[in-house]
Amino acid sequence: MDLAQYIISKNVLIEKRLNELVPERDVPYRSLFTAARYSLLGGGKRLRPILTLATAEMLGGNHDSAITPACALEMIHTYSLIHDDLPCMDDDDFRRGKPSLHRAFPEGHAVLTGDFLLTHAFDVLVNDCSLSSEKKVRLISILSRSSGGDGMIAGQVMDLESEGQLIDLSTLRFIHNSKTGAMITAAIEFGCIVGDATEKHSSILRDFGRNIGLAFQIMDDVLDVTASKQKHGKDIASDVTNAKATYVTLMGVEKSQEMAYNLLQEGVQQLKQLPLDVSLLTRLAESLVIPRI
Amino acid sequence: MDLAQYIISKNVLIEKRLNELVPERDVPYRSLFTAARYSLLGGGKRLRPILTLATAEMLGGNHDSAITPACALEMIHTYSLIHDDLPCMDDDDFRRGKPSLHRAFPEGHAVLTGDFLLTHAFDVLVNDCSLSSEKKVRLISILSRSSGGDGMIAGQVMDLESEGQLIDLSTLRFIHNSKTGAMITAAIEFGCIVGDATEKHSSILRDFGRNIGLAFQIMDDVLDVTASKQKHGKDIASDVTNAKATYVTLMGVEKSQEMAYNLLQEGVQQLKQLPLDVSLLTRLAESLVIPRI
Repeated sequence: MDLAQYIISKNVLIEKRLNELVPERDVPYRSLFTAARYSLLGGGKRLRPILTLATAEMLGGNHDSAITPACALEMIHTYSLIHDDLPCMDDDDFRRGKPSLHRAFPEGHAVLTGDFLLTHAFDVLVNDCSLSSEKKVRLISILSRSSGGDGMIAGQVMDLESEGQLIDLSTLRFIHNSKTGAMITAAIEFGCIVGDATEKHSSILRDFGRNIGLAFQIMDDVLDVTASKQKHGKDIASDVTNAKATYVTLMGVEKSQEMAYNLLQEGVQQLKQLPLDVSLLTRLAESLVIPRI
Repeated sequence: MDLAQYIISKNVLIEKRLNELVPERDVPYRSLFTAARYSLLGGGKRLRPILTLATAEMLGGNHDSAITPACALEMIHTYSLIHDDLPCMDDDDFRRGKPSLHRAFPEGHAVLTGDFLLTHAFDVLVNDCSLSSEKKVRLISILSRSSGGDGMIAGQVMDLESEGQLIDLSTLRFIHNSKTGAMITAAIEFGCIVGDATEKHSSILRDFGRNIGLAFQIMDDVLDVTASKQKHGKDIASDVTNAKATYVTLMGVEKSQEMAYNLLQEGVQQLKQLPLDVSLLTRLAESLVIPRI
């Protein structure tokens, strides 16, 4: 199957399901749902949910039971962007080519909308009729760990505290692995649970997830200094403006690209250990890194 | 048993368990845990966890399996206070007699600490070894619903949007029921699940929870105008400063107190329908309303 077509068709499914999971509501507090839909719908690469769907499909899992867990990951990702953009955090005025949520809505609503999407991710998982209680518990455990105080939030804290500081490569790697890598690995793990992967296959796929998660983030650093605002949808090189250390500031563009390539190659080699058709996941991983240079 | 002694002994247990669930950590992002502990430990009435413990005990449930769910509720309550105090929300400089979290730590840390405690509440529930998968799913479902977009967060949104507005009593009741009542009812429901209550008993206890939740919030409004900063630990009548409608501004102190008494009486009558020793829960409910006048 053509990769671009695959991504487009999955994006349609994800958008439709997100639209069902966070519908417009005729309630006095409807602004909460309007704000949530503003940030959640109609944009974004849907990287995490697509990885969940592709992993589950590769394993032969039921596609229907992968879509809601995939959307829960996108809710967590979206909440983290909303809070990350706040004036007291990265203070970004644009996101995905339009004003960030606290610019389009009052700032208090942006905080609450983030809180809502965070909580709603757990709500849609726990109420998903297509999942057994055992699977719900495993998915929720992965979600709370990867997005929590030793996962994504740990990375955010380190990121905040590193602003204007000289940090070394291992600290930067920790920040990226926690802030971005943990949720990308979680997306793969979600696919493993829905697709009933063996423990051995899950372990290989987790390693693959960690490698492409870091490769993706390094390329994001590269993109931050090379892409235009029009293409990227946010202020150019905002990380540089915020005096944040990135792979590019520590290693330069070329070395960063090389590292991303190497991580990608390592991930691809890991996939080859699986007795499965890994072509789709391989091409997805490549698309995260290669065409963005 | 003496009620004051009961509350003190439970507070010791809750503090001990919270201390275990959010320990000091020797990690580069330790400030996250320091901030979480600043807000979570050493203060607060622990109303919600005590209600869970008392309900479970009344039903004859295992005390050991009630303590972690009880603490999860306190984490949600604490995160909501942290975010509610932010400058873009209620802008409160004090909480529980000391500087609010965004005054003691950078504001970005306060946002992230709230996010952490929210996420951690689900994490400790899903990883609690004393609970079956079925019970975890039921507890998480109650937690995500009562603290989510049709529960506590709905109330916060309505509260924000009502600032400086003329609102009627039914809107105010909705705000209080969502913002405070939902989590107090959840505390009772948590006790029902841990204590294996029948559906009939759970239904009676939920109604009791709704009544005392609202009674408690009405008395909180009364306290906001009558108590001193020293006693209450936050700016006097901050709701009045923020031009928020309260039961007191809509009905006056005396009528508000009367309404709180009536709700308490209704709740106490509901408890009497149960073929159980309801004396402790009755006295707890009374203590929430009566001695605060």
